[in-house]
Amino acid sequence: MSIRLGDNQYGKAETHVVRITKGQTHDIKDLNVSIALAGDFAESHLEGDNSKVVPTDTQKNTVFAFASEPVGEAEEFALKLGRHFVKEFAAVKRARVTIEEFPWVRISVGGKRSPDAFMRRGAEKRLVLVTCRKNEEWVVAGLSDLVVLKSAGSEFWGFPRDRYTTLQETHDRILATAVTARWRYAGATTIDWAKSYDEARRILLETFAVKRSLALQQTLYDMGEAVLASRPEVAEIRLAMSNKHHFPVDLTPFGLDNTNEVFYAADRPYGLIEGTVVRDDAPDGALAW
Amino acid sequence: MSIRLGDNQYGKAETHVVRITKGQTHDIKDLNVSIALAGDFAESHLEGDNSKVVPTDTQKNTVFAFASEPVGEAEEFALKLGRHFVKEFAAVKRARVTIEEFPWVRISVGGKRSPDAFMRRGAEKRLVLVTCRKNEEWVVAGLSDLVVLKSAGSEFWGFPRDRYTTLQETHDRILATAVTARWRYAGATTIDWAKSYDEARRILLETFAVKRSLALQQTLYDMGEAVLASRPEVAEIRLAMSNKHHFPVDLTPFGLDNTNEVFYAADRPYGLIEGTVVRDDAPDGALAW
Amino acid sequence: MSIRLGDNQYGKAETHVVRITKGQTHDIKDLNVSIALAGDFAESHLEGDNSKVVPTDTQKNTVFAFASEPVGEAEEFALKLGRHFVKEFAAVKRARVTIEEFPWVRISVGGKRSPDAFMRRGAEKRLVLVTCRKNEEWVVAGLSDLVVLKSAGSEFWGFPRDRYTTLQETHDRILATAVTARWRYAGATTIDWAKSYDEARRILLETFAVKRSLALQQTLYDMGEAVLASRPEVAEIRLAMSNKHHFPVDLTPFGLDNTNEVFYAADRPYGLIEGTVVRDDAPDGALAW
Amino acid sequence: MSIRLGDNQYGKAETHVVRITKGQTHDIKDLNVSIALAGDFAESHLEGDNSKVVPTDTQKNTVFAFASEPVGEAEEFALKLGRHFVKEFAAVKRARVTIEEFPWVRISVGGKRSPDAFMRRGAEKRLVLVTCRKNEEWVVAGLSDLVVLKSAGSEFWGFPRDRYTTLQETHDRILATAVTARWRYAGATTIDWAKSYDEARRILLETFAVKRSLALQQTLYDMGEAVLASRPEVAEIRLAMSNKHHFPVDLTPFGLDNTNEVFYAADRPYGLIEGTVVRDDAPDGALAW
Repeated sequence: MSIRLGDNQYGKAETHVVRITKGQTHDIKDLNVSIALAGDFAESHLEGDNSKVVPTDTQKNTVFAFASEPVGEAEEFALKLGRHFVKEFAAVKRARVTIEEFPWVRISVGGKRSPDAFMRRGAEKRLVLVTCRKNEEWVVAGLSDLVVLKSAGSEFWGFPRDRYTTLQETHDRILATAVTARWRYAGATTIDWAKSYDEARRILLETFAVKRSLALQQTLYDMGEAVLASRPEVAEIRLAMSNKHHFPVDLTPFGLDNTNEVFYAADRPYGLIEGTVVRDDAPDGALAW
Repeated sequence: MSIRLGDNQYGKAETHVVRITKGQTHDIKDLNVSIALAGDFAESHLEGDNSKVVPTDTQKNTVFAFASEPVGEAEEFALKLGRHFVKEFAAVKRARVTIEEFPWVRISVGGKRSPDAFMRRGAEKRLVLVTCRKNEEWVVAGLSDLVVLKSAGSEFWGFPRDRYTTLQETHDRILATAVTARWRYAGATTIDWAKSYDEARRILLETFAVKRSLALQQTLYDMGEAVLASRPEVAEIRLAMSNKHHFPVDLTPFGLDNTNEVFYAADRPYGLIEGTVVRDDAPDGALAW
Repeated sequence: MSIRLGDNQYGKAETHVVRITKGQTHDIKDLNVSIALAGDFAESHLEGDNSKVVPTDTQKNTVFAFASEPVGEAEEFALKLGRHFVKEFAAVKRARVTIEEFPWVRISVGGKRSPDAFMRRGAEKRLVLVTCRKNEEWVVAGLSDLVVLKSAGSEFWGFPRDRYTTLQETHDRILATAVTARWRYAGATTIDWAKSYDEARRILLETFAVKRSLALQQTLYDMGEAVLASRPEVAEIRLAMSNKHHFPVDLTPFGLDNTNEVFYAADRPYGLIEGTVVRDDAPDGALAW
Repeated sequence: MSIRLGDNQYGKAETHVVRITKGQTHDIKDLNVSIALAGDFAESHLEGDNSKVVPTDTQKNTVFAFASEPVGEAEEFALKLGRHFVKEFAAVKRARVTIEEFPWVRISVGGKRSPDAFMRRGAEKRLVLVTCRKNEEWVVAGLSDLVVLKSAGSEFWGFPRDRYTTLQETHDRILATAVTARWRYAGATTIDWAKSYDEARRILLETFAVKRSLALQQTLYDMGEAVLASRPEVAEIRLAMSNKHHFPVDLTPFGLDNTNEVFYAADRPYGLIEGTVVRDDAPDGALAW
C-alpha cells in the first residue's frame, strides 16, 4: 500500500528550569524549555527501532546539565542546546528549541531592591524560538500575554454592510488586546539579545499607546512597522492580537446615560487579527518558524 | 523604507453556538466556531480604510443566522460558512472555518435514553477545519483531548546513550497520551462525515489498544496507517501525541516492592511526538492546514 | 502585643498516584490526593521549631507507599491515610484527606472491552473528603464537573421586578449546569462506597432529566432530596450548580425566526446556586467539611 | 419524610465590568463582581415559587447601573451593592459581594505615563469580600496570585522522621510561593481602603523578603503578624501559601556540581500552608467569610 511517513518531530516539552546565579546579589533565570528534533527517525516509526532516537529524558537532562553554567540570555541558551543536538547526533537534521521565560522583578524593601527576593512580573512571557540545522540557524524572539488597553484614540467605521451586519460605527471605542509578537532576526547571531528585546517591547507598547487606531489591523501594522523601522537586526515580525471586546452597556432601561464609560468585558467570541510585517530585502526565513 | 505587509488574516474566534433541533426527541449540536479571512485587506492595515473589512461582528451574526436551519454535521456547516464568505465578498480570497464540537450524550433514565436531557461526554472534542478559496476547498476533520492509557504492551529500549543519558531501558511501561489527530479528506466533499469520523476514531482507539508499542513514534505511525488503510477518503493524517509520563515510584526506602503497579503521574515535562502519515498519491494539501 | 496564631493546617496537595492492579485484566485507580493536617503546630509558626511537623514530603511518600497494596475505593484509601496520621503523630489532631478520582473506561476493541487499555471518561471527577480526629471520623463523597443540559421542561417566571429588571419571563428555556455535589455519610464507615456513589450519581442525573424545573433552585432541591430519599446512609448533601446561560439569539434583524432553537452559550457572568438538603435527624457534621 | 432545606445562597457570579472615568487623564477600574444572596428563599426551592427571587440577571444589571457613577475603591462599590440588596428586598437577609480587581498600570511613553493607554499588571489580583446583613456588615480585603521567591534565607530541618521520611534537611533552599491573603477590617467602614491595601501588600512583600525562614509556616505567621502589628484597622488575616517546590537537580551523573544553583520547578504535588493570625481583642468575624 502506498502509505508512508511524512513530516515528523519529537522531543521533550516544558522542562522547567530555574537557574540562580549567586554573587553579591542573586540573579534568576526562569525558563520553560521545549525541544523538538527532526531527522532520520523513520525506523522508530516503522519498526520500533530506537537506535537513533535520543530519548526525551536525555534531552531534559541536557537542559539541566547545560544550566550548570550561567545560562545568559534565553537566545544563547537555546542556541547552545540546538547546536548540541545537531552536532552530536548524526540523525538529528533539525533541532528546534522553544523557551518561554517568566520575568521576575526584585522585591523592593524600604525603597531598595532586594538582593535575593523576587516577585513574578505577571502573566507576560518572553519567547525564544531557535532552529538549528547542520549548517544553518535562525533565531526568533518575542513575547506573549502582553495585555494592553487604550480608552481613547480608537475608532472603527467605514466597513461594508450586508444582510447580517448589525454593528454600529464608532469613533470612540475601547481597544483592548492580548499581544503575541514574534520577530525573526536577520542572520547574525551576535546580537545584543537583551537590548534588542527590551527595545522591541518598548516600541510595541509605545506605538500601541500613541498611534490613533482606525482598525486593529492598522494598529498591528503600525506596531510591527515601528519595530522594523528602528531595529535593523529584525527581518520580520509576526503579530497575533485578539480583539478583547469591551461593549458599552445600554443603561437607558435604568434611566441612566452611558457616555462610553461603563463596559462589559466579554470573553468569547473575540476578534483575532494576525499579520506579518516584513523587510523586503529580508533573507528567507520560512524554516525559522 | 522597504517594509511591507506580509501574510495576514483576521476573523471572529470562538462563537459558541448551541443548536437544538426539536422533533419527537431533541437533537443538540454544540459548536465553537472560529472564522479567519484572508485576501485584499492591505488598505485596512496601511491606512485604516475598512471598506473591504467584513466586521468580525458580522461574521458572528452569520454563524447564528446560518444556525437558524439545522446545521447538519460540523463539516457541512463549516463549508456553508466558508463558501458564503468567499462568494459574497470579492476581497475575501480565503476563508478558514475551524469548529470545535463538544459531544453530548443522552442521560439514561431507567435504562431509556432521555429525549431532551443530555450530559457532556468529557473533555474530548471533535474538530473540523475547512478552507475555501474562490474555486478550491479542503476539509480536515479530527479530534483532540482524547486521553488514553495502556498498562501492558509498551516498551522502550535500544536507544543511544550519551553523557547525559540516565534513562533505564524498559520492557514494561505505562503508555499514556493525549491524542490530537487531524485528517485531510481527498478532494470530494460528498463524504459521509459522521461515519468517516466515527470510523477513524474507532480505528485510532483500537489500534492504540491492540498494537504492541516499542516507541510512541511507532504507535503514532500505526494509528495513522490504520486509518489510511481502511478509509480511502482520507489522504493524510497528522497526529500529535504527548507522552504523559507515569514513573514507577521507588518504594525500596520503605521496604516495599513496586512491581510496576504504583506510578507517579507527572505533569511536566512531557514528551511530545508529532508525525504525519500520508498516502503517496494524495493530492497536495498544503493549503488545507 | 495581643496578636496570636489562629486556625491553621498544612499538608501536601495533589499527589497524583496511579495504581494499576494486574490480574487477568488490569484495573486502574487514578487518584489526586491532598492531605491537610491540623494540630499542635504553633512552635513551627512562632519559632520555626519543626520538631512536630510531619514533612509534606513524607506525606507524599506515605501516599505512594500505601498504594503498594490495592487501594480499594477512594473512601477506603482516604480513611487509611487519615487514620495513619492521627494515630502515628501525637501532634496531629485532625487529618483531612481529599481525593479527586479521574474515571477511566476500557477501550472497546471489536465490541470487547480491552483488558489493559483505557480511555479517560471526560472532565467529571469523583470526590472524596475524609476527616479523621483521634476518635471521630467523617466521610464525604461527591462529584464535580458533571455538565448537564435539558432543552425542555425548564421555566423561569413570577420573579419580582424592580428598576433594574429587564429579564423576560420564560416558559421554555435551556437549563444547563455544571454540578458539584458532595454528600456526607451518616456515621458508619462500613458502607458499600462504590454502590452508594453509583446510585447517588444515577439519582442526580435522572432527577435532573425528569423533573420539570421552575427554578434552578427547585432542581437543586429535587436532586438533593431524591438522593436522601433513596439512600438512607446519606445524612446531608450540598450542591453547587452554575447556571450556564444559553441565550436565544435574536435573529429578527436577519429576517429569520428563532423558535427557541439557536442559542448563544455565554461564559460569564453565570448564575451560581448553592444549597444544602439535610435529614432532620442527621448527626451533626460541621467538622466534616 | 424528615428531609429539609439547609443553608443556601444564590446570585450572579463574575459580572466583569470595566469603568473608565474620563477627565484630563483616564482612570480605569476593572472589576469581576460576584454576588450571593441568602434569605427567605425556601419557596423557590420547594415549590418553584420565585416571587421573592431577585433574578441573577437583575443583579448583573445592578452592577452595571451602579457603575454609571465613578465606582471608587472596590470596597466602596461592594458595600454599595451589598447594602442595596439587603435594603431593597425584604427576603434578602444577607448579601455577599466578592470582587476580583485586575490591576492596570499606565504605559510609559518616552518616560511619561500615558493618559489613556494601560498595561495589565500581571496575574495578581486585588480581592474584596463584603458581607451585609440588615444591620451589620463586614469588609474583607486581600490579594491572590502574588508569586514570590527567595533564593536565600530559607531553611527546613529538625522535623520528625518516620518509616516514610526520605527528605534531607536543608539550610539553604529556594522558597517560592503563591500568596493568597485576606484580611478582615475591624468594624468601621470609614477606612482609607486604598492606603490600607497598599500598606498591607507592601508589608507582606517586605516581610517575605527580609525575614529568615525556618519553615513556610513561620514565614506565613511573620507576614500576618507584621500586617496586624502596623495596621490597627486589621482585626485578622488569613493566609494560604503554596510551597512551590524548586528541587535542586542532581548533576553528578553528568560529572557536574550543583551548588544550589540549578533547580527543577515542580508543578505537583505542592505543599499548602494555611493559617490565620488574629488580634486577641478582635470583634468576632465568623460571618465575614
